[in-house]
Amino acid sequence: MSARSNDAKHSNNRPALPLFTDLYELTMAAGYLAHGVSGTATFSVYVRGAGLPRSFLVAAGLAPALAELADFRFRPEDIDYLAQTGIFPDDFLDYLPAVRFTGTVRALPEGTVFFPDEPLLEVTAPILEAQLLETFVLNTLGLHTMLASKAARCVLAAAGRPLVDFALRRTQGQDAGMALARACHIVGFAGTSNVLAGKRYGIPVSGTMAHSFVTAFADEEAAFRAYAEVFPDSSVFLIDTYDTLAGARIAARVGKDMAARGHRLRGVRLDSGDMITLSRQVRAILDEAGLTEVKIFASSGFDEFKIADALAAGATIDAFGVGTKAGVSADMPFLDIVYKMVAFAGRPIRKRSPGKETLGGEKQVFRFADSTGRFVEDVLGTADERVDGGQPLLETVMREGRVCVASPSLEAIRERCRRQMAGLADRYRRISAPAVYPVRVSRRLRALQQGLP
Amino acid sequence: MSARSNDAKHSNNRPALPLFTDLYELTMAAGYLAHGVSGTATFSVYVRGAGLPRSFLVAAGLAPALAELADFRFRPEDIDYLAQTGIFPDDFLDYLPAVRFTGTVRALPEGTVFFPDEPLLEVTAPILEAQLLETFVLNTLGLHTMLASKAARCVLAAAGRPLVDFALRRTQGQDAGMALARACHIVGFAGTSNVLAGKRYGIPVSGTMAHSFVTAFADEEAAFRAYAEVFPDSSVFLIDTYDTLAGARIAARVGKDMAARGHRLRGVRLDSGDMITLSRQVRAILDEAGLTEVKIFASSGFDEFKIADALAAGATIDAFGVGTKAGVSADMPFLDIVYKMVAFAGRPIRKRSPGKETLGGEKQVFRFADSTGRFVEDVLGTADERVDGGQPLLETVMREGRVCVASPSLEAIRERCRRQMAGLADRYRRISAPAVYPVRVSRRLRALQQGLP
Repeated sequence: MSARSNDAKHSNNRPALPLFTDLYELTMAAGYLAHGVSGTATFSVYVRGAGLPRSFLVAAGLAPALAELADFRFRPEDIDYLAQTGIFPDDFLDYLPAVRFTGTVRALPEGTVFFPDEPLLEVTAPILEAQLLETFVLNTLGLHTMLASKAARCVLAAAGRPLVDFALRRTQGQDAGMALARACHIVGFAGTSNVLAGKRYGIPVSGTMAHSFVTAFADEEAAFRAYAEVFPDSSVFLIDTYDTLAGARIAARVGKDMAARGHRLRGVRLDSGDMITLSRQVRAILDEAGLTEVKIFASSGFDEFKIADALAAGATIDAFGVGTKAGVSADMPFLDIVYKMVAFAGRPIRKRSPGKETLGGEKQVFRFADSTGRFVEDVLGTADERVDGGQPLLETVMREGRVCVASPSLEAIRERCRRQMAGLADRYRRISAPAVYPVRVSRRLRALQQGLP
Repeated sequence: MSARSNDAKHSNNRPALPLFTDLYELTMAAGYLAHGVSGTATFSVYVRGAGLPRSFLVAAGLAPALAELADFRFRPEDIDYLAQTGIFPDDFLDYLPAVRFTGTVRALPEGTVFFPDEPLLEVTAPILEAQLLETFVLNTLGLHTMLASKAARCVLAAAGRPLVDFALRRTQGQDAGMALARACHIVGFAGTSNVLAGKRYGIPVSGTMAHSFVTAFADEEAAFRAYAEVFPDSSVFLIDTYDTLAGARIAARVGKDMAARGHRLRGVRLDSGDMITLSRQVRAILDEAGLTEVKIFASSGFDEFKIADALAAGATIDAFGVGTKAGVSADMPFLDIVYKMVAFAGRPIRKRSPGKETLGGEKQVFRFADSTGRFVEDVLGTADERVDGGQPLLETVMREGRVCVASPSLEAIRERCRRQMAGLADRYRRISAPAVYPVRVSRRLRALQQGLP
């Protein structure tokens, strides 16, 4: 199976918008309406860099976000509920049925590598409309981008070894689990355990057995033989239920019998204990039995740090099940992602709250690469400037409220991400203490800040 | 508005089950079917205590979990997808349409305070059925319980001051945002910014204005006056866009004018800077203007730690907006929650993988309280024993695959939680370095472990 679906129809849920929002977006909208504040605003979405334990980020979540924006409207039941709260003036409630998103969206294509303070998306629309998108846009882009950025680091740490997303049972909810499988596929994972993601996105699914299976049989050997009978060429035996080395010897015995019948044991899985020592001992047991092709698969607590440590210490692990810690981005369980108004009614806007300053003006990100394609520097400029030699990264994806580019397939996004990650020099790809990628503010964008309040 | 809905109909999404699962649940099920492994299994769901930065947990997520269990079935399109993977034998695919959940579920009622290693739910069913629920049950109970447990700590830290859930923009996805609002309501929050949660669960919604609103007007005063005109008795002005103290003076001026017209400024909001100093300075400015009733609301980075620190340092904050860090349970972004087979075909089962040992046997949790209602000790016993003086906490909520208790209203769950938290002595309620609550294993449960493999 390969990822085949154009996933603009990302979800089979009811749309979350427009009520998937913080209340204040609606009260502000009521304020704008009452006072005729109807100018065009640009909101810029970016990730603040302070304290971010990442040298780079991977943009994701655009397709699911656009699918909802294109269908933005208040349904009668939504307006009934809002009326019932007693919060809103009637004029506002009467206005809501006609509200659609009619604006422009410029965004980094999914799979693009980007850096803190660079906009990954900008919305330009009448202020009321643009305001109403904030919560949803931040939630969606934040989740997908956070997960893709974490998973990309796992891919780097594994240095070519296949990874499988195993985190579904402990993701922060159902759409986190779906977003994770999708993000992992984008950054290059080999598969996911998430069956619904397999169905919905066409991602390869993968999985073996749990301890409950082993303990449901009289002994480990009976469990392995029973499993191998049903899955003669795709079995991976979980060998740590009682004693990992004893389990490995039993797996080797069953694996030899499988080979004798013309089948093949695909692998064994380690799920506890000292993975470095155990993987080497298990490798020796398998090799001694002539099962040099049988893979060692390891799971339990693997994220980029544990993968890198295990490989550096000489673990003979062929593939990793990446679980909870990566699935919730445990070292960075949220992005400091913001949706800031940077222009209104033709003038740039900035905010100067301490520690939360913004740069005013619509923006573009220009990327400079060397002759080998390695990224050298980004320049943050104004949307309307041209920076010689720099590739503009933000593309217009919605115009007048309609999606105006073909939604790339998940495979195309994955391929884009592969090329993007190849553009990162080793010093930015390091798991620990990576270098800081240079992002410069253009002279023009800097000049624009002069004289703003 | 008060929480009114019986929320068994938790979600308007398509059911996630049965494909919201790790693939291995299905491959194991195929293995059980092929080998006639059909005995009754009991799986126990509990949170491992090692390294858990919590002295207590709050059970949540049962109603949304039960709603899906009661409707468990493979739809034709699900089976088509599974067939298409090429992984499964035909016998298994042919068997799936008839699969329903026919088992028993015993669980802690939502809102119950519990402790590590105590089961919050046990499933007893034919092994194939019980196995297929694992991923979904863990994901759902884990998410809701994690969020409720974190939010409960915020309530304790705030010592009676109202809290509002403000985290929607940065929760890990949409159902995390919905689960969060629900969990916050259960543990005693005053409201949520999440409008969809207001609609779906009847939770009070709350919200004010963002910086974009302030910057969309000529100046702060114009923005405040415009807002007050639309919301003459429910306005909370955000005062930190330019300079917090200057903003406070403007808010005081507008507030006095509102009062002169018979209205009332509800509050001001601080969102950046040193909240301790600023809150006292702003309080002085408001008091000097005679606006002693105007509340100071603070947001930005508040979780139980920052709330406790701010109050200990003498901040004059009346209410808190609790955001991202609580919304993703940042100090503990996942629970080490597991679904372990503890009995099969009439015999107790345990697992002895290093660091992942389980206690065999179906269980019950017995709680002992003193004469004032304070919890003294829990005893973990077998499901069929009686422990004199101990209140059994797990209740049978499904029998033969049907929900057999009335689903309590969200208000009833909130009230239960309030009473439960009142049962915790101060030493367990402390935010930092709380005492460890005693959970003892009964003699009978311990004896059962003798002689197990």
